[in-house]
Amino acid sequence: MLPSIADVQPLLQDSMVTWININGNRHVPTLEQLGTLLNVHPLVLEDIAHLGQRPKIEDYSTYLFLVVKLLRLHDPDQQVDAEQVSLLLGPHYVITVQEHDGDVFTPIRERLRAGRGRIRSMNADYLLYALLDAIVDDYFLVLEDVGERIETIEDALVTDPAPTVLTLLHALKRDMIFLRKSVWPLREVISRLERWDSPLIQSTLHLYLRDVYDHTIQVIDAIETNRDLLSGMLDIYLSSVSNRMNEVMKVLTIIATIFIPLTLIVGIYGMNFAYMPELQHPWGYPMVYLIMAAVAGIMLVFFRRKHWL
Amino acid sequence: MLPSIADVQPLLQDSMVTWININGNRHVPTLEQLGTLLNVHPLVLEDIAHLGQRPKIEDYSTYLFLVVKLLRLHDPDQQVDAEQVSLLLGPHYVITVQEHDGDVFTPIRERLRAGRGRIRSMNADYLLYALLDAIVDDYFLVLEDVGERIETIEDALVTDPAPTVLTLLHALKRDMIFLRKSVWPLREVISRLERWDSPLIQSTLHLYLRDVYDHTIQVIDAIETNRDLLSGMLDIYLSSVSNRMNEVMKVLTIIATIFIPLTLIVGIYGMNFAYMPELQHPWGYPMVYLIMAAVAGIMLVFFRRKHWL
Amino acid sequence: MLPSIADVQPLLQDSMVTWININGNRHVPTLEQLGTLLNVHPLVLEDIAHLGQRPKIEDYSTYLFLVVKLLRLHDPDQQVDAEQVSLLLGPHYVITVQEHDGDVFTPIRERLRAGRGRIRSMNADYLLYALLDAIVDDYFLVLEDVGERIETIEDALVTDPAPTVLTLLHALKRDMIFLRKSVWPLREVISRLERWDSPLIQSTLHLYLRDVYDHTIQVIDAIETNRDLLSGMLDIYLSSVSNRMNEVMKVLTIIATIFIPLTLIVGIYGMNFAYMPELQHPWGYPMVYLIMAAVAGIMLVFFRRKHWL
Amino acid sequence: MLPSIADVQPLLQDSMVTWININGNRHVPTLEQLGTLLNVHPLVLEDIAHLGQRPKIEDYSTYLFLVVKLLRLHDPDQQVDAEQVSLLLGPHYVITVQEHDGDVFTPIRERLRAGRGRIRSMNADYLLYALLDAIVDDYFLVLEDVGERIETIEDALVTDPAPTVLTLLHALKRDMIFLRKSVWPLREVISRLERWDSPLIQSTLHLYLRDVYDHTIQVIDAIETNRDLLSGMLDIYLSSVSNRMNEVMKVLTIIATIFIPLTLIVGIYGMNFAYMPELQHPWGYPMVYLIMAAVAGIMLVFFRRKHWL
Amino acid sequence: MLPSIADVQPLLQDSMVTWININGNRHVPTLEQLGTLLNVHPLVLEDIAHLGQRPKIEDYSTYLFLVVKLLRLHDPDQQVDAEQVSLLLGPHYVITVQEHDGDVFTPIRERLRAGRGRIRSMNADYLLYALLDAIVDDYFLVLEDVGERIETIEDALVTDPAPTVLTLLHALKRDMIFLRKSVWPLREVISRLERWDSPLIQSTLHLYLRDVYDHTIQVIDAIETNRDLLSGMLDIYLSSVSNRMNEVMKVLTIIATIFIPLTLIVGIYGMNFAYMPELQHPWGYPMVYLIMAAVAGIMLVFFRRKHWL
Repeated sequence: MLPSIADVQPLLQDSMVTWININGNRHVPTLEQLGTLLNVHPLVLEDIAHLGQRPKIEDYSTYLFLVVKLLRLHDPDQQVDAEQVSLLLGPHYVITVQEHDGDVFTPIRERLRAGRGRIRSMNADYLLYALLDAIVDDYFLVLEDVGERIETIEDALVTDPAPTVLTLLHALKRDMIFLRKSVWPLREVISRLERWDSPLIQSTLHLYLRDVYDHTIQVIDAIETNRDLLSGMLDIYLSSVSNRMNEVMKVLTIIATIFIPLTLIVGIYGMNFAYMPELQHPWGYPMVYLIMAAVAGIMLVFFRRKHWL
Repeated sequence: MLPSIADVQPLLQDSMVTWININGNRHVPTLEQLGTLLNVHPLVLEDIAHLGQRPKIEDYSTYLFLVVKLLRLHDPDQQVDAEQVSLLLGPHYVITVQEHDGDVFTPIRERLRAGRGRIRSMNADYLLYALLDAIVDDYFLVLEDVGERIETIEDALVTDPAPTVLTLLHALKRDMIFLRKSVWPLREVISRLERWDSPLIQSTLHLYLRDVYDHTIQVIDAIETNRDLLSGMLDIYLSSVSNRMNEVMKVLTIIATIFIPLTLIVGIYGMNFAYMPELQHPWGYPMVYLIMAAVAGIMLVFFRRKHWL
Repeated sequence: MLPSIADVQPLLQDSMVTWININGNRHVPTLEQLGTLLNVHPLVLEDIAHLGQRPKIEDYSTYLFLVVKLLRLHDPDQQVDAEQVSLLLGPHYVITVQEHDGDVFTPIRERLRAGRGRIRSMNADYLLYALLDAIVDDYFLVLEDVGERIETIEDALVTDPAPTVLTLLHALKRDMIFLRKSVWPLREVISRLERWDSPLIQSTLHLYLRDVYDHTIQVIDAIETNRDLLSGMLDIYLSSVSNRMNEVMKVLTIIATIFIPLTLIVGIYGMNFAYMPELQHPWGYPMVYLIMAAVAGIMLVFFRRKHWL
Repeated sequence: MLPSIADVQPLLQDSMVTWININGNRHVPTLEQLGTLLNVHPLVLEDIAHLGQRPKIEDYSTYLFLVVKLLRLHDPDQQVDAEQVSLLLGPHYVITVQEHDGDVFTPIRERLRAGRGRIRSMNADYLLYALLDAIVDDYFLVLEDVGERIETIEDALVTDPAPTVLTLLHALKRDMIFLRKSVWPLREVISRLERWDSPLIQSTLHLYLRDVYDHTIQVIDAIETNRDLLSGMLDIYLSSVSNRMNEVMKVLTIIATIFIPLTLIVGIYGMNFAYMPELQHPWGYPMVYLIMAAVAGIMLVFFRRKHWL
Repeated sequence: MLPSIADVQPLLQDSMVTWININGNRHVPTLEQLGTLLNVHPLVLEDIAHLGQRPKIEDYSTYLFLVVKLLRLHDPDQQVDAEQVSLLLGPHYVITVQEHDGDVFTPIRERLRAGRGRIRSMNADYLLYALLDAIVDDYFLVLEDVGERIETIEDALVTDPAPTVLTLLHALKRDMIFLRKSVWPLREVISRLERWDSPLIQSTLHLYLRDVYDHTIQVIDAIETNRDLLSGMLDIYLSSVSNRMNEVMKVLTIIATIFIPLTLIVGIYGMNFAYMPELQHPWGYPMVYLIMAAVAGIMLVFFRRKHWL
């Protein structure tokens, strides 16, 4: 059975650091009880309950409120999806609210249970850092997957520019637009958190937050690079299609241009005029073959001159 | 019968909050009476009467003047249209001037009549916030509709890239240009309102205005994302058309390239030369079929090598 | 006869506001006399005489110097042209120098002659505002004309994407580049004028200048929107051309693909082999029609499957 | 014989303004002697000797160091080339180092020799201004030439969109990239020079430097406008090529679509079946012409309906 | 045998400048010993060990930590690769950590061994400058190589726009994206280093750092110019392909349009109607040639009118 808010209450008055993680942001009664307990502003509870928030940070003097995006890969079609994580940092507690059960915080839980590392001996702000760090590190996994998909498409572009490549390119472009929208505001959030002058954030934490900031910038850099690569790949794809069409047109033109005059020649000797002296000539038939060979030869020389062969 | 300005006058001296909503911004005498009554600058009255203003905020010390855009969907062709709403915030009053009757403020009217919620117990600035919030929330409805239209087109792009898709894409792009123009300056307006140092705005309101600001940013984000998606979709459309053309060209080339040589062969044996030994040969006719089958077979192998089949 | 500078001189020492408008900026002696009279810096006189200046504002402590662009529509081809207007604001005078005679200031002249409105009772700075306002209001006329031309082209794009549309689009794009270059720096000019801390500008004028500033922003917004619309229209045009080509190709392919095999069949029975049993068969001729109908039918089914019909 | 550094030395201690112009920036011994004489930092000498510097300004307290680009048109192919000019401004001297002999400073030399104008009576900083002004004025000549080339191409685009136009467009685009790179940083250089708080620059010079700054902005504006025009022209070119192709395709399709069915008809009556009643009919031959005329007529009506004729 | 950290220890307490260069950033024990010895923050050691950092600078009061990218050309396919170099500047030491053995610092080692130049007589900050200068100078070599590849492709574009050109263009574009990502943040790093107010950087060094900054800007300028050139070249390539296709289509159309009507004519006289008076006419056969010549002539005149020949 899940613990109720009543069980949690004594922990929050404690001087130790308490971390409450709520999976499922729509359970309004739980949120409201928590809100009353911690004296949280109704607008904050609204933001937690309604998804579609941008990453942001807000200072309510007794606590900080952060919204961050957690990225997920959907397995079947590998589309990227973003989940909203709300974080509340108080003097002795961190509250996290996720949409679904997730395993991004599992390593932190294990480190806490094992009781090792800095994380047990430090304040709530260090826990907040650890959680943000876990979320940003998770972005790299998504980017790695995207990188692999880009490489797969890049190989396919050279070997076989099929129309399906276009659909994959489009899907990746959408993912990049989506990633960008989710990660870009995070840069500002963490930058402001780093420079924040709040008693909730100790000065020793700034170096750690700077590290998270650097990682966020790396993620944004990678997204921008991928966008550039993808738009370059679309150009390549369109050029390949154009090249293929050109090749098809050349074959058609060569075949048509060689055979149409030959067809005219055989058509001429298929006419039924009473007086066509060539028809009675014993060498007439072989001569026609010679003429046809000559015409085809001239055409081939012409095409070679034009660099079409 | 509509109340006249004379009826309104005593209300405005009152210490309670008075909200006057005027539908139809062109009734100049009403505006002028109101202007005299409240000592409004002539330039403000001019801005209210002349549409085409950008969203803006101006401080006239005894009152604040805001212009905001209200978005509407025209039902038949779903084109987005913007209506100008002018708001005046004084110490004890809010004046709103709309172009047409609208139902965007209906929920607020109902909350006021029901006499529940914070809205009855707070000052004029809270009413202003509630009105702005209603307008911005209305944008999400328009965006939802646009999102559905984008999805419809996206499906059509994959199944059947007809030229009508292009017209729909173009209409959506126009709407996005239009939305952007209407919403983008609002960001600045609300940001300035939030940071405004005026006795008309109480400090407790800043959190609420920040919330409206966040919503505005979300709307702008969504518009930008839609723009990116639409330009990606145009690329997909053009590529699909190009692919289709390529396929058409391939079919033409395959048919022409196989049949034109065969036509030459049958043309040859249609010639009327007196001495054509093959014609008299009993196996001549079946042999022609064999030769034609061989030529067609070679062509097909060639096309398979080129990956055209 | 035109008044000479000597006639003007006493007016300038007067405590009333004097407005001198000079049509034709190349009459160097007049400019030099005026320069000596008002103690104008030689660089200012040079800027007045040489066209091609950007809109700008310069403070010479005893007077302000402004350069602004006046837009004109050339009637035959409706191309937009910009004319340079130089304005000098002194304590009791405004000097305007135009390239050609123009009627943009006519309404102001009439208001002055009629002796009504604020314009007669206020200082030189209000006259400057009125002149700038007249110039910026004139931009809206040009934009209205451009808007009409865009709508005309938009209709033509849908009904008949002729190559002439392309020329019109290109002309409009040029005009937009031109308009932008003329109007964009004006924003900065008026913004600086509004915030200027000069005894020549009275504080009561700021609201009026803010109004001109808002109009300038509206003009810039409209230009940017037009640019976006025009580039969207070019995409539409190119797609339409591409679609048309696709349709042409389809017709060619359908005709060729149906008739080329039929031509082969009739070619076969035009061969002159001695032993062709079909030729002697009494049902041979009608059977050929049946076979041809079957081949054509199969092709049509194939095309319908491909959604080409 | 050229004067040596030893001859120059006494001049520099003089209270008059001395201008030394060195053509050829690679003569290291001269530069080193000058460096020792004027106590110039080794990094400055290095920058003078090594080309490829960006326009920049550096303050070494006793002298200012500027790098500026001088533009040249190569006559045969009219390609734009940039030459580096290094300027040193000391209390009583200006040193200019050019790559090659040039005539851009000739008018200044003549003004100095003629001993007229402000240039003889003012300080070293005014000479620096005069030199910078001469360099920036020279840019307008290059831009004028570019403008003429753009107009030539624009006419060619309409009358005959040959592939050579593309090469010209590409060359112009390169020139614009090049010009932009050379002129863009100059804006910053002159803006900083204007706002510089150095005893080497007198306050009366600021108006003149502001004038050079305005010219630089005009040059940058013209470059940006040209870039916009050129990219618009590339679109026009591509559309023209596309239109031409469309026209070619239409002609091919019309010819093929009319004649291929006619060829089938005459092929039918070229068959050798024993029982073909039409062949014996006296009106058979003229009837074939009638049928052919009917088929061709139907086709033409079809094309007119499609607006292809 | 390599020296161990124990051997290095006494050097670091010394008042002389010590430079330790570590090749291979993954040897964690060495890094940890060094970290303990110099009291380096664990996050710094992590950044050194984990590649993929952006260029950055961090101040840990007793030492500065810099990450910079070193560019390398892979010989076989000339792809550009970036290597991470970490630099630690303390009061009397510089530590550099490279991924692989490299020769970019060889000239500095030789200058140190030779004991000449300023480098022996100055502080650790000058050594840092010399190392940064060597790294940035190395970028110019990479850019030179890229410039040569661009010129090679540019020539190929004009003479023979083969599809392989497209692959080369794409590879260069990737390299530019990569270079940009590596060099762009360096601008900020060196700019901050130059303006840094740290006792570790002496004021005399600012001029030198400004020089490195100028070089970095030149590298960024060159990268941006290359990007512009490359996107211009892609346009040229696509236009060339389009032009070629146009030419191919023209040849096909000319051949088909001339020969298809001629084939119809000879087909007509191949029909077997009993009553075809022309067939018995003695001039019939030569007349057919005349008619065919006339038809072909008319067609050629038509094409010349259309400027297709």
